[in-house]
Amino acid sequence: MVDGAVRGRGASDDKGGMLIPILAAEALLASDGKLPVNVKFFFEGQEEIGSPTLQAFITHNSDLLEADMIFSADGGQWGEDQPSMITGLKGLVGCEMTVSGASGDQHSGMQGGGIANPIHALSHIIASMKDLNGDINVAGFYDDVVELSIHDRQTIAEVPFDEDAYIKKLGVPDVFGEMGFTTPERLWARPTLELNGIWGGYQGEGTKTVLPAKASAKITCRLVANQNPEQIFVLLKKHIEENTPRGVTADISRLPGSADPFLVPSGHNSSQIAAEVLSEVYGKAPYKVRIGGSIPVMSMLLKELGVHATVFAFGLDDEKIHAPNEFFRLSSFRRGQEAYCELLQKLGGKN
Amino acid sequence: MVDGAVRGRGASDDKGGMLIPILAAEALLASDGKLPVNVKFFFEGQEEIGSPTLQAFITHNSDLLEADMIFSADGGQWGEDQPSMITGLKGLVGCEMTVSGASGDQHSGMQGGGIANPIHALSHIIASMKDLNGDINVAGFYDDVVELSIHDRQTIAEVPFDEDAYIKKLGVPDVFGEMGFTTPERLWARPTLELNGIWGGYQGEGTKTVLPAKASAKITCRLVANQNPEQIFVLLKKHIEENTPRGVTADISRLPGSADPFLVPSGHNSSQIAAEVLSEVYGKAPYKVRIGGSIPVMSMLLKELGVHATVFAFGLDDEKIHAPNEFFRLSSFRRGQEAYCELLQKLGGKN
Repeated sequence: MVDGAVRGRGASDDKGGMLIPILAAEALLASDGKLPVNVKFFFEGQEEIGSPTLQAFITHNSDLLEADMIFSADGGQWGEDQPSMITGLKGLVGCEMTVSGASGDQHSGMQGGGIANPIHALSHIIASMKDLNGDINVAGFYDDVVELSIHDRQTIAEVPFDEDAYIKKLGVPDVFGEMGFTTPERLWARPTLELNGIWGGYQGEGTKTVLPAKASAKITCRLVANQNPEQIFVLLKKHIEENTPRGVTADISRLPGSADPFLVPSGHNSSQIAAEVLSEVYGKAPYKVRIGGSIPVMSMLLKELGVHATVFAFGLDDEKIHAPNEFFRLSSFRRGQEAYCELLQKLGGKN
Repeated sequence: MVDGAVRGRGASDDKGGMLIPILAAEALLASDGKLPVNVKFFFEGQEEIGSPTLQAFITHNSDLLEADMIFSADGGQWGEDQPSMITGLKGLVGCEMTVSGASGDQHSGMQGGGIANPIHALSHIIASMKDLNGDINVAGFYDDVVELSIHDRQTIAEVPFDEDAYIKKLGVPDVFGEMGFTTPERLWARPTLELNGIWGGYQGEGTKTVLPAKASAKITCRLVANQNPEQIFVLLKKHIEENTPRGVTADISRLPGSADPFLVPSGHNSSQIAAEVLSEVYGKAPYKVRIGGSIPVMSMLLKELGVHATVFAFGLDDEKIHAPNEFFRLSSFRRGQEAYCELLQKLGGKN
């Protein structure tokens, strides 16, 4: 199905894809002698390592970066023949907790029944944070969540989602999550609290009747507008402290990596123009999708410049992003350049 | 305080201690020309590896082993000046469970909210097995437990137990366990369900926003009379199966190592005689204690020969059993030989 592709590390949307708007601008310059609008290019090369110095750069150069609209070349389309637009990204915040009992490992026969078991206590803390209906029971966690409107839910429902195929693809016995929301709503538009890792005691073959001194877990939450990572960390910490059982203590630390959620407002200027261009280039209207992942630069630009960036990019789902043998379709390069030319013309009132 | 000691690996009660009754018998033979009663010596050298071939040996040699009373040299005394007798040992059974969700690890941003998290599910299963009052909520778990009589509780209360010193020694913020029982009652005479290990997902430094495919835990229960390890495993398995949340599956396997609980009946013949000897040798009555650990040979001999063995042994708590620089007091060797001579004389009606 791929009629040609650039292969190799860094070929895909969020690396090689950044060439597309440059090539489009060069083409317009070559044919018309000037661009229809003023353009600034901003290259973000740190996204894969959490953009450690990006915030400082944007803060100190907000005059230089000032813009009426922002388009990002990091993203993709729904399919080769179906355009899509990203209307939301999730934020991120995480914590690690270590539950401690005795000052050293104990014999489960000698001290069992006498003192608390840190793995047992940790399990109760985790269970208290999210119930078996998928509801997060951390007090205040949902307070700042922008509830889905009827229109939001209709927009999500317009995107085809085959739940049976999803279950089969992931190899799970069933989907799981908050009651009262569809799976795409939960994946795209609801905050999550996920356990990323847990450890304590004996993990080897067979039996060791130890009553361990410590047990730990890592948790990250994906946030939606208008949840705030700092505030959510405070709520997580408070919940853990208040739900630490007797007989143990809990140490809580914040994990590195943090991002604000990002939600494109309804009727947003650059997104409407991008949707028009995609409709023309593909011959059909784009799906409006949200993404469970986080792209910190989007919320940093919003915070410093007050502009919601519009993702306008042409990666496809099967291109093995970040994996060996990653590739990017040559046809996407061509279509992407055409789309960026259209976009620039439209922005300059030429189309 | 130690006036002389045998040091080195295997010096203590359950290794070197077995010499004491032999030396006592030799002394009586040397002085009287014969023993006051018939004596069989039975050497169990597999206790530290779970006695894998012992059951078969005992079963096939029950005629050879037949005895009116059995005394075991594996155990100890309360203190240098305070004798004690073991009236109960706990049994043991264990299981391992692995909770599985997706067929491989997933990105917590991409699939979070869509599918169940195995660490979260495992935590709920564990929390369902034992609550924060310390009660084990596995249906039927307590059904066969011989409840403590008023006399049992008085006997346990007669043994001095300093809870503040216990808390300080273990470095815990508090004791923990079933409401309505004292800490010594829970340690010695109540069954336990302890988590020995847990693992799943990312355990390294910092963050990895993985939604893991699997999470596992190891559990062992210490049992009291008349709980049965086979039956308790069936109950554990049933509980886990019935409490596995939607969206995951649970695999349950039995851990190696198993022992029946052991409880000396009130008025038991050889224990009464042993208590008389200890009272004479130490000049004070022995404490009646139970032990949270398991000694499989005790219940195997009971099952095959119908005889409750009496622990008659002289190790002390500070002798670093199984640790480097383990030792056994020479004074305990002397007192132990004296006590075994008295015991044999009394059994032969000579004292």
